[in-house]
Amino acid sequence: MSDSTTDDALDTRERMMLATLRVLGDHGYAGLSIQRIADEADLSKSSFYHFFDDKDDLLLSFLDFMLARYGLPFEQESPDGPKAELDAYLAFALDGVTGDIVIPLDDFDPGSGRPYVALRSQATFDDDYRGRFTDIDANIHDRLADVIERGIDQGVFRDVDVHATTELIMSVMLGSLFRRATSDQVDVDAVRTQLDTVLESHLYADD
Amino acid sequence: MSDSTTDDALDTRERMMLATLRVLGDHGYAGLSIQRIADEADLSKSSFYHFFDDKDDLLLSFLDFMLARYGLPFEQESPDGPKAELDAYLAFALDGVTGDIVIPLDDFDPGSGRPYVALRSQATFDDDYRGRFTDIDANIHDRLADVIERGIDQGVFRDVDVHATTELIMSVMLGSLFRRATSDQVDVDAVRTQLDTVLESHLYADD
Repeated sequence: MSDSTTDDALDTRERMMLATLRVLGDHGYAGLSIQRIADEADLSKSSFYHFFDDKDDLLLSFLDFMLARYGLPFEQESPDGPKAELDAYLAFALDGVTGDIVIPLDDFDPGSGRPYVALRSQATFDDDYRGRFTDIDANIHDRLADVIERGIDQGVFRDVDVHATTELIMSVMLGSLFRRATSDQVDVDAVRTQLDTVLESHLYADD
Repeated sequence: MSDSTTDDALDTRERMMLATLRVLGDHGYAGLSIQRIADEADLSKSSFYHFFDDKDDLLLSFLDFMLARYGLPFEQESPDGPKAELDAYLAFALDGVTGDIVIPLDDFDPGSGRPYVALRSQATFDDDYRGRFTDIDANIHDRLADVIERGIDQGVFRDVDVHATTELIMSVMLGSLFRRATSDQVDVDAVRTQLDTVLESHLYADD
């Protein structure tokens, strides 16, 4: 991997990552090759080896690239408090919207979660991927649980089972993502509305 | 495809399906080949062509084979009523247990949902798979919605938004399956407990 950190290098890297995203979305993991990504990015195949050792190295970086974006709403505590933080995360996870910033899902993630699901499905049999997604999910779990704990401490959330509540929310989020990426039979708006109803009566303290 | 329906043929077919399940679980979709399935089943490669035109034909049959089992709890209305039916389905989907019959997940589905997720992830870019899983999910949605509607009619469920409730349950079920198949960070028991708590207060009418 090159140690170049000029703007040009960063731009090239970004182009490679976005091309990887598109190839994954169009051809799945099985159809992924450096050649195909190079063609998609309009770069030479050899230019990839300035940045990455091999396809696995590229995909590891790609995972970091996706996570840096998916993890966005948790980067800092919101001045508006835990309820606003949870709401921002659910909006991000279920609607592709974070706060005032609408993430252009078609640009970032063509087909809404398809590259993520294609990559993650490797974890069904590849232990390296499985370990990676276990860490990623543990991180999301801990951050979500932290938001809920702070809400309880501040009296804006009820004294719920933090772990079980976190687990249910994670299944709803990842289930909606999985369904949207693999089927046209999913109504994410209905899921969101129903989840809000559930949180309203189970989690949010009466005003 | 052969029109043989002797016990031997059915046994051979079953062996082929179970071998496909194991190869999918061990190697994912990308690592799936008739040769590998034949080796796993201890059958000749040519014997597969008595039953299937090609790999795609085999995988289509395999999908039917899995669905015939996954769809099991919905085959008939329970004499115990809609609440028992919903409970049986959730137990089946989340715990791998249907009524009194414990499905040996390790036999049926090594790695708990891994072959299903590996196959379903093809739907991220293959429109035939996507159409198939859209139909499958639409069927599950309609059956779940039917159970909830009957529960409302019989007064054992509250007058909830049937579609939104169904959508939330589907995301919880498929999210738990997706997580379990791709990560060790998931506590399905906690998800089930929390879902029961939610259904208790939102769906089930007071006795």
